[in-house]
Amino acid sequence: MKAIWRHGAWLVLTAALLTGGCGPKLPAPTVSGEYRPALVRDMELFPQNLDWFAERAGNDVLLRSEAHAAEDAARFHTLLYAAWDITRPGRGNADFFRAELARSGSRRGYAENFQPWDESRWRTMATNADWPRFPSVRMAAITVRATSLRLAPTALPRFERPDAPGQGYPFDLFQQTGLPPGFPLMLLHRSRDGAWYYAENSLACGWVAADDVALVDQAFQRIWRVLPLAAFIRDGVSLWDQSGTWLARANLGTVLPLSRDDGSGLHVLVPVRDPEGRALIATARVNREQAAAMPLPLTPRRMAAVGATLMGQAYGWGGLNGDRDCSATLRDLFTPFGLWLPRNSASQAKSGRFVDLTADAPDVRERHILAEGRPFLTLLWMPGHIGLYLGECQGQAAFFHNLWGVRTRDANGREGRHVLGRAVITSTRPGRELPCVPDDALLLNRMKGMTLLGHD
Amino acid sequence: MKAIWRHGAWLVLTAALLTGGCGPKLPAPTVSGEYRPALVRDMELFPQNLDWFAERAGNDVLLRSEAHAAEDAARFHTLLYAAWDITRPGRGNADFFRAELARSGSRRGYAENFQPWDESRWRTMATNADWPRFPSVRMAAITVRATSLRLAPTALPRFERPDAPGQGYPFDLFQQTGLPPGFPLMLLHRSRDGAWYYAENSLACGWVAADDVALVDQAFQRIWRVLPLAAFIRDGVSLWDQSGTWLARANLGTVLPLSRDDGSGLHVLVPVRDPEGRALIATARVNREQAAAMPLPLTPRRMAAVGATLMGQAYGWGGLNGDRDCSATLRDLFTPFGLWLPRNSASQAKSGRFVDLTADAPDVRERHILAEGRPFLTLLWMPGHIGLYLGECQGQAAFFHNLWGVRTRDANGREGRHVLGRAVITSTRPGRELPCVPDDALLLNRMKGMTLLGHD
Repeated sequence: MKAIWRHGAWLVLTAALLTGGCGPKLPAPTVSGEYRPALVRDMELFPQNLDWFAERAGNDVLLRSEAHAAEDAARFHTLLYAAWDITRPGRGNADFFRAELARSGSRRGYAENFQPWDESRWRTMATNADWPRFPSVRMAAITVRATSLRLAPTALPRFERPDAPGQGYPFDLFQQTGLPPGFPLMLLHRSRDGAWYYAENSLACGWVAADDVALVDQAFQRIWRVLPLAAFIRDGVSLWDQSGTWLARANLGTVLPLSRDDGSGLHVLVPVRDPEGRALIATARVNREQAAAMPLPLTPRRMAAVGATLMGQAYGWGGLNGDRDCSATLRDLFTPFGLWLPRNSASQAKSGRFVDLTADAPDVRERHILAEGRPFLTLLWMPGHIGLYLGECQGQAAFFHNLWGVRTRDANGREGRHVLGRAVITSTRPGRELPCVPDDALLLNRMKGMTLLGHD
Repeated sequence: MKAIWRHGAWLVLTAALLTGGCGPKLPAPTVSGEYRPALVRDMELFPQNLDWFAERAGNDVLLRSEAHAAEDAARFHTLLYAAWDITRPGRGNADFFRAELARSGSRRGYAENFQPWDESRWRTMATNADWPRFPSVRMAAITVRATSLRLAPTALPRFERPDAPGQGYPFDLFQQTGLPPGFPLMLLHRSRDGAWYYAENSLACGWVAADDVALVDQAFQRIWRVLPLAAFIRDGVSLWDQSGTWLARANLGTVLPLSRDDGSGLHVLVPVRDPEGRALIATARVNREQAAAMPLPLTPRRMAAVGATLMGQAYGWGGLNGDRDCSATLRDLFTPFGLWLPRNSASQAKSGRFVDLTADAPDVRERHILAEGRPFLTLLWMPGHIGLYLGECQGQAAFFHNLWGVRTRDANGREGRHVLGRAVITSTRPGRELPCVPDDALLLNRMKGMTLLGHD
């Protein structure tokens, strides 16, 4: 693996950073007129290639025994379909969502037009949520396209502050999570206008657009549940039925019932929505580069192969724009291996044996990780961010994570971001060479602990 | 009509602007902790209420004779359904869209992660457009939900420069236009992955998501074309079929075939997508506050009533977020009256008798407008922006327009925006009282002419 950029470029960038105070807000064209994405020095020092780390981690060593992997996959299957057994809203969920819409004027932030959320538009939305009738329905359903769970029945964004780093676009605070097609849900409430449902499942709850879901009856559920799962192992796979009708697009993280393996490919079931909003079953055939029976054997080599799809991919807060944030990157990466990770970084940190590192000084923390972390199976967590430990590189702990940016602070104490906006491999202190990155902004210094997956 | 905010507030804001150099980038909370949207002084001086202007313009005077209105509506009907008669791509259209994807690396701008568009992601997108096979299909279709025509087969944005005023979010340069549900299209090409169609119609052309449209056969077209049109006259109208199934949401600007008037309400046809991607016909009943038979009599009073829905509404570049920009605001406003306006401001300026004002000095320009402009039927155009002339107020020409912001320039020559981000009524020089608004940034000074609608 070659370094992905030349030393010369690094010098140019460093010079620009040193002269320009806290660094360019955006990557600018180089002398040749080309544009290069923003970098931190770690990205030159560390191979941006999971294979390199997989080889050092023993490539084909099984990180999870076959028996354990089978257990993992069974648990995944159970959690996925648990949505259809939900009988009532989870405790406190309604209160949480009600409170979101009960925000006072000064706590609503800004709308898509960079103005405070318009009072009458907010009130219309809150009325439309129809809380007095909650919970108004109980209908098992499934997503029929990639969609989102929202904190309010609207596709409009809510920004904390459009002109502040990390508080404007793309940080839409109404965005809870992205959902792939074929994701089971229990619909528990409907907005007055019928355009939104409040839904729950094992991953998250929130409002979903009515035409992105279809209702599933008992017969549908039985067929769906009895089959093993096929997991997609790359992004942008089009699903076509036998007659050539385009059905949906599947990405890494999508799972669908596996109906048949014909030797060269897999046949999966795909939910499609009929005009009355009910789910019908279509089938699509995909090849072995696109999907695999869950679970794949959890080896570094396989993890690196699946992770290659994620490397360098754009950051997407809560699944916005169909992209992934730090936690979605990990969740989707582990899905084909049958490991169910929860939605956000804090919950992911609790999904294995958690080793608290807060008592350690930062350099002790790193030695602790190098000594105890298991490459490809250990998560490194700091509040609001999480990544996958890959092993040692240049004497440092390397990890794979989808990062919006490195926090900076200028001479006036003004906060900024050196935006990377994508999935990278770095040390635990990316950007420490940049001017205006205070020690307390470094990820290692904010790190709370590591989580050894597969050890409960 | 009372002024919409108190004098005290204006003084506070003015003081803040004067001390703060070029003004706050975002509205900040007031002393009481409330948030108020950004203002320009015109918004205090001029009633933010179309009724006030309608009264002065003679309320019930017919601006367009019944015979002319019938002609307008017939033309609207013809232009709407002309999509289904398209036999081949419009001249130059393919070249235009091809060129968009052939942009070199330095001309691609920035992606949703504030980084230059990733080379491999761009190439994947360009390959997916499949130009060598263009045009690959010819299929009449119709939108089944509010959707967008895009300049490239992707929902991802392209920003000129995320950190520059008016060049970052929400100015996604891949966004061509929003389309309401029930909008006829001719699909002329399909992306390789099947997820996108390239489509044309009388309004615009571009890429549309495959699952937002449904194919229409000859029988469907016949039924659809033979009926008169019902136009929606407010936003957020849910369409339900007789059995209570939610079908779609209609807004001002949506038109659907009118199948029956039962005295108290209208029955409209609604296209729904079957699992094979074909359009079926559903029906929905709406009341007289929600829709009307096209054309409504074009009077100032009716225009004001319809326009009330638009007043204060958030700005949405090219229909992004389901909002309207300056030209979409006008197009949707005139739709119930049967007047078809083209998509962008430059074309709208040509859709009537154009009076060139470039030879006039700015103050002469304004006198010219006051003398010759016909309130509620005259458009005021400057490159990139357009609005509706409403008549005289405080000795000045007043107009209704959806404005992103007033351009500012600070002492260092750095450009900025005093963002309003919504539909307002102002003079032709909104924001002239703000510091750092140079003369050449004032709308009146950039104005090219006025367009008298209904005079060809």
